[in-house]
Order: sequence, then structure tokens, then C-alpha cells
Amino acid sequence: MTANSAYHRLSSRFARIATIGEAASMLSWDAATMMPTGGGAARGDQLAVLAGLAHRELVAPEVNDELEAATQEVGPADPWRDANLKLMRHAYVRATALPADLVEAQARANSACEKVWREARRTASFALVRPQLEEVVRLVREAAAALGPALGLSPYDALMDGYQRGIGAADVGPVFADYERFLRRALPEAEARQAARPAPERPTGPFPIAQQEAFCRSLSARLGLDFNHARLDRSAHPFSGGTATDVRITTRYTEADFTQAVLAVVHETGHALYERGLPVAWARQPVGEAAGMAAHESQSLIIEMQACRSDAFLSWIGRELHATFGGDAAPYAPDNLARLWRRVDRGFIRVEADEMTYPAHVILRFRLEQALVSGDLAVADLPGAWNDGFRDLLGLVPPDDARGCLQDIHWYDGAIGYFPSYTLGAMAAAQLMAAARRSIPDLDAALAQGDLSPLLTWLRTHVHGVGSRLGFNELLEAATGKRLDPSDFEAHLTARYLT
Amino acid sequence: MTANSAYHRLSSRFARIATIGEAASMLSWDAATMMPTGGGAARGDQLAVLAGLAHRELVAPEVNDELEAATQEVGPADPWRDANLKLMRHAYVRATALPADLVEAQARANSACEKVWREARRTASFALVRPQLEEVVRLVREAAAALGPALGLSPYDALMDGYQRGIGAADVGPVFADYERFLRRALPEAEARQAARPAPERPTGPFPIAQQEAFCRSLSARLGLDFNHARLDRSAHPFSGGTATDVRITTRYTEADFTQAVLAVVHETGHALYERGLPVAWARQPVGEAAGMAAHESQSLIIEMQACRSDAFLSWIGRELHATFGGDAAPYAPDNLARLWRRVDRGFIRVEADEMTYPAHVILRFRLEQALVSGDLAVADLPGAWNDGFRDLLGLVPPDDARGCLQDIHWYDGAIGYFPSYTLGAMAAAQLMAAARRSIPDLDAALAQGDLSPLLTWLRTHVHGVGSRLGFNELLEAATGKRLDPSDFEAHLTARYLT
Repeated sequence: MTANSAYHRLSSRFARIATIGEAASMLSWDAATMMPTGGGAARGDQLAVLAGLAHRELVAPEVNDELEAATQEVGPADPWRDANLKLMRHAYVRATALPADLVEAQARANSACEKVWREARRTASFALVRPQLEEVVRLVREAAAALGPALGLSPYDALMDGYQRGIGAADVGPVFADYERFLRRALPEAEARQAARPAPERPTGPFPIAQQEAFCRSLSARLGLDFNHARLDRSAHPFSGGTATDVRITTRYTEADFTQAVLAVVHETGHALYERGLPVAWARQPVGEAAGMAAHESQSLIIEMQACRSDAFLSWIGRELHATFGGDAAPYAPDNLARLWRRVDRGFIRVEADEMTYPAHVILRFRLEQALVSGDLAVADLPGAWNDGFRDLLGLVPPDDARGCLQDIHWYDGAIGYFPSYTLGAMAAAQLMAAARRSIPDLDAALAQGDLSPLLTWLRTHVHGVGSRLGFNELLEAATGKRLDPSDFEAHLTARYLT
Repeated sequence: MTANSAYHRLSSRFARIATIGEAASMLSWDAATMMPTGGGAARGDQLAVLAGLAHRELVAPEVNDELEAATQEVGPADPWRDANLKLMRHAYVRATALPADLVEAQARANSACEKVWREARRTASFALVRPQLEEVVRLVREAAAALGPALGLSPYDALMDGYQRGIGAADVGPVFADYERFLRRALPEAEARQAARPAPERPTGPFPIAQQEAFCRSLSARLGLDFNHARLDRSAHPFSGGTATDVRITTRYTEADFTQAVLAVVHETGHALYERGLPVAWARQPVGEAAGMAAHESQSLIIEMQACRSDAFLSWIGRELHATFGGDAAPYAPDNLARLWRRVDRGFIRVEADEMTYPAHVILRFRLEQALVSGDLAVADLPGAWNDGFRDLLGLVPPDDARGCLQDIHWYDGAIGYFPSYTLGAMAAAQLMAAARRSIPDLDAALAQGDLSPLLTWLRTHVHGVGSRLGFNELLEAATGKRLDPSDFEAHLTARYLT
């Protein structure tokens, strides 16, 4: 393989595309954290121009021939290059399957719908945004119909593939059905046990925000994030962005309670550690990227839900929090923190849900969005179908659509096929944690000292360092010995809430 | 002119190029203010890729034909479009005059030299960086030789043109010679007068940085900067960056003294106000850009040196500073502030120089860099020539090259032809202020209330709103009735330092 090989030319091209993506990622971070409001319009243009340039690189006329030629050059004997080339082709097929006018129509429709949705959610008026959502769904169906044949996937799986390769509705459906059966049995029992225990005490504030911020930064560093390659800032909604050598995480603060800020930082640190641990030798190549949204969520949740809400870690962080904020020690005791931070609570809002009921929110959306894509469900019937499904799964009916089908931006921004990733990530996190526990016998002893390094070392080897060389199920199989299986997640919930 | 006209296609292309430039500008701001050190390497790649994409847009094969066709479409009856098209051609000619391998060689040589220069300056060792500087100068001469014929300019003027169009060495030489004569007479007299007055009292600190920062932000807003379209942050060296609808200014703070922070903010606010006042109808078009580096410096200096160090403004800001920081009132009296902030002081370092001696630093560099480009001066002879020239102009000999020819990054980064802009800007600022005073009779009354709005309104009409429609001398002629003329600057210095 020479420097003039087709593979080498493709590799340079994809590095250029990734570098444009890095620029866009930093500009998106800035828009959410630093940008004055007056910069918004120009920023939209900047991101659109960068997206257009990246797309033009990807669909350039010579790419197809180079992919053909490189396939002759690269043998399966080199699994990284082989996987990289397959992912290049995959990106090219996705990008060329959609006609340019459809892509533009989607960008316009999504943007228009998302704007109206903000007002519709504010006023709990689904009727207001229905025409825009109908257009968005129509175009998504058109895109799915074009992508499916090109990728050899069903239309819905072709959409899912845009967020997480290597798993489709046929895999997810049975896993979610299994979980639904578990939930119907486990949730009432968990609630009964919880009701029988004393209510948790809340630490009393105020907790000065500068102190919370310093605590969060030091906590994130303790979890393994190197602040020579990271920043922690504030934004309206916590997120993890930036690039592999310069990750940017955010959280939000309220003086009355540090819980939200601290747990968001723990979650975003999980995402950031994944980016930091991606294979350096494959930086800016498709195979060097994170394996997908579900894989990413598994890494935030293994840190947040599996490690940092464990009994062992709570004992450490309770002491640290008390040392930082002072006051009465009782609320910082590990059993109290456990009652406070591990409450099961049926509610209407996905992003506020506990780890046991969260999958019900996702299962509902997974079923509804499949029906929207297949055409079995008309947009006009969405509020009713939502409320019926929600009552069936969680026994509650949303009092209005703002707390029902209007609550999430995803569909209104054209993101259909994304929701399963949240729960696939939660299940994968439990499955990976179970495997990590098998290979690290003293894991809890480390966690009880606020030491995540044994877990992080294991994750770097089995998840982070793998990049995108394996698909979602293949990654799990290599790391845990089996494809996605809800039993580890159910066992985790059973141990935490039912014993 | 239709939407399919050649002019329209060029206009879209240049908007795309400008938008890529906006993205690069924000990323450069981030690198100086926010970026963790570990992000530096990737950021360099991001900026290089964006520069490459912008260059590719500019030199695309169809541009030449479109320029030809558009020239037929656009008549001189439309002065904005006419000027815009001329500037497009000018940008195209500059970009295509240099062979790609020369551009790459310059990028590599500049980057290598700049790295060694940091160490050379630290150790005051010119010999260390001499080979790298020789290569940089050799390539600059090659570039100048290619650019000159393409632009119809001398080699040195072709370099100057890259920083400020519309003025060349033949204009600058006599102006600088005039100023040199003025300085030889005025400087000793100013020093004698200063020595006869009492020494200024320094306000005693510490001045908490949060308080300084709040003062600076409020001051910048008072000067006219709209913080819905701006930010103020911290960086190692103050600068103004960002974009027209999202300007980012910076300063640096020390607890011991607010002077540096406040005056830098005033200066950078002047730059920012220029960007904010550019013609919105021509945003992202060459004719909608600032008119050049000298024009830009005139706008920072008219705010900093002309308006904010005036007696009238000092009386207002003295009260504001005292109200903010408290303590003894005497140091905040306007005559004391004048003695403190308007000291003449011969020194070795350009960036620390007062407004009277600053031009001597520039005149020296202007003469030396012309000789470097013509080949009359060898790089090896630079330190000696520097020290001889410095002694001749200011009567001092630098004790080492760190305080001599190694002090500024410009040449070591390939920027030859830039230095005159600083003094052209200072002179233009005085000339514009004199014209503004003629048309705003109550200017000092407004300044005495900290009110720059009459001046700003005048600048928006006569400078900011003109964009790049006029070259440097044409802009001055339209705004002040004459081309660049050092007499207003000399009169300003005479009034301030010799009366």
C-alpha cells in the first residue's frame, strides 16, 4: 500500500471530512455555551456551509472508483483497514442514496417544524405543529424508502442505522418485549419496597454555584477526565461535545440543589471518557469513531448509573460532598443518598425518569415511530396513540400533550430511529458492567475510594479502544461473550430495587 | 441582473468563502481564550483545512470566466457592485499569482521559524533563528516577485497590499520622513515639559479582577458595543476577533493595576465597533469588509487615543473608576490620569510605546523590511542595522536582540509589509478626529459625559458604513477632504504634549 494508493487517498479525504466535523462540533459547543444571541443567524450559516463542504467531499465523483480500487488493495487480513474501508463505503452509500433536493427539503422542514414545536410545547397545542410534523414525517418516510434498499435494510432500520449501526428493529423488539414483561412485575414491587422505607432527607442549601462548579470539575477529573484535553462549562441542557483531544462537557446549576449538576457531570464525563479513549492511531477515520449513539449512551450510563450510583461509590461521594458543602452529615450518608438518587417514580417526562421506568418511555416511542414510518399511524392520531400507550405501559395518562407527545424535540427535528439508543445504551451498560465485574474482582473496593481507574482501564480495552471496528452487537459479544441481552440490566435493577 | 448571472454566482461563492472565514475566526478566538492546551494540534489542523477549502473556492477553474462575464454585466453606474467585483478580481489575482507549492513552503517555513523564534527571543539569541528567518525572507521575496507583476505593484507594495490596499511605499515614505523631522524636534521638548511637571500618582490597589471585568464590560457597552452581538473574555494578549454579528474582544487583568485591562478594552472596542458598523447589505462580500489593517487600527486608535485619552473623557472615566474602586480620589483626577496615561517614554519595546515614539518603532521596521525585500539588507546584518537605526531614531541602543530585532513575531511568521499599518492607523485616527470635530461642535461636551455616540454616528457614516468601497487614501479623502497627511497627527501631539 503506497502513499498514492486509492485507500490512502480515501483516508486523506475522510480525515478532511472529520476535521470539518471537528470545526462544526466546536462551533456547536460555542453556540450552546458562549455565543451571544445575536450570533445565532450567522452561526446557522456557518454550520450549514461546513455541512455542505463535508457532504461535497463525501460524494465527490471520484469516491466511488476509489472505493472500488481500494477494495482490491485492502484484504480482510487487516481487520482495521478492512473495517475502515467498509465504513467509508457505508458513509458514501448513505450520503449518495438521498437526492440533494430531498436533503434540502428535510433541512428546511425540520428547521421550520422545530421552531413551531417550541411554541406548540409551550402552549400544549399539538394542532399547532401537526402540519409541520406531517411534512417532516412524510420526508423521513421518503428518505427511509431511499436509504433502505441502498443499505439492504428495512426503512425503519435504515433510519436507526443513522444513529447506531449493527442493530435493527428485529433485534430490539424482543429485547424490549422482554423488558416490558419484567417491568410489569418489578415496578409495583419496587414501589412497594420504596414506600416501606423512610423518605430520604435532602441536604439543605443554598449551595454556592462556584463551589458546585469546582466540585464538579474535580469530580470529573477524579473519574478520569484529563482537563488538559477537556473543559467544563454551563449550558441550558447538559451535553458532551468538542473533539477527541478537546472534549467539552457542560452542566447547569441551581443554588438550591447540587444533585442535577453533579449527576449531569458524571453522565457527560462518561461520554467524554469514551471520546478520549478512541483509538489514536485511527483518529479522524470512520473506524476510529465512537461505535454509535447506543454505544455512546452505554458509556455515559456505565459511569453514571452503574458505577457512580453504586453503594460503594455513594459512600465515597457522600463524604466528599459533605466535606465540600458542610452542614448536617445525615443526608450525605450512603443509604440516604441511595434513597435520594435511586428513587423509582412513574412520571410523564422521559428526561426526568428513573432507570427502571425510563425504558417504558423509550419502548412507547420505539413502537410509535415504527408505526409512523410504516404509515400504520397517521400524525393526526399520534396524541391519542401516545396516551393509550403510556397508560398501558405506566398506568398514567398525560394531562396534556406538552407532557405527552410534545415533550421531546427528536421527531419534530426529523430524528426518527434515535430513541431506542437510550435504552440499548442502558442495557449495554449493565451487560458491560457485569463483564467488568467478572474480570475485576476488587471493583467495589476501588469504587468505595472514588477510584474508577480499574473500570476505565477495562472500558478502554473492551469499548473505547475498539472505535467502530465492531458493530453494536459484535462489540458486546467481544466484550461480554454475548449479544445484547436484557438479563444483566434486569438483574442489576433487581439487585438495586428489589432486594 | 438575474439570480443566474455570473455576478450572482460569484457573490454566492464569496459569501461561502467569507462564511468559512467566520468559522475560522471563531475557532481562532476559542484557541486564544477557551481551548485547553491539548486541543492545539487538532485546532491547527482544523484551521488549515478551512483555509484550504476557502482557497479552493477562490481559485476554482470557473472563477476567471465568471469574473470576465460579470465585468460585462456590471457597469460603473453601480459603485458598490463595481467595487465588489473589482475586489473579487483582486482577491482572485492574489490567490492565483502564487504557485501552490510556494504557498505550502511558506506555511511550513513560517510555522518552523515562529517556533524557533519563541526560543530565540527567550534566550536573546538571533543566531538561533537566523537560518529559519533567512528561509522565510527568501520565500517572501519569491512571493513578492510573483505578486508584484500580477497586481501592477512593486514587490514591497504587493506585500503591503496584503494588509492594506490603496497605499504604498511611495506614499508612506514621505509621510514617515515628515514625522521623523517632527519627532526629532518634538520629543525632547515633550520630555522636558513632562520632567517639569509633578510625577503622576498611581491609584492603589489591589483591584479585584471580577470588579475590573464588570467595569470593562460596562465601559465597552457605554462606548457603544452591543453585548447581544459581542463578548468580552480574557486572553494572554488582547485582541478583537469573531464576526460582524458576534464580535469577541479580550483583555488581560492584573490585580495590581486596572490600567492595562481598561485601555486594552477601549482599544479592542474600537476594532469591534468597526466590525459592527460594516454595511449589512454587503455582509460577506469583499466590499462589505473592513478596508484593511491601517483602517482597522485607525478605528481602535480613534477610540482609545483620540477619544478616551482626551481631557474631556478622562474627567468622566476618572469619576467612574473612583466610584468603582473607591479609595483616595486624587489619583483619579483628570490631570493626574492625563499624566499617568499620556506619558512620553522612550523604550525598546514597540507594544509598550507611547503614541509619540510609537511611529519611530514603525519607521525603523518599515525601512528595514523594505531593505530585506529588495535584498539591500541581508538577514545576517539585521541586528546591527536594527541597533544603528534605533539609536539614530530614539537615541538608544537595545541591550540585546530580545529587546531589539527579536521582539515582534511578525517577520518570523512571514508578515512583512504589515508594520506601517500601525502608524498609518494612528495618523488616520487623528485626521478623522479632526474632521469629526469640525462637524460635531459639541464633541468634547459629549465625551465629558462618557458619551461617544456623536463620534460613533460620524464614524458609521464616514468609515464603518463604507466597508471596502474605497481604498485607504480614497476613504480619507472622502471623510476628511484630503489623503493621508501627518499634520493632523502632529497637531494632535503638539496640543497634547507641547502646550
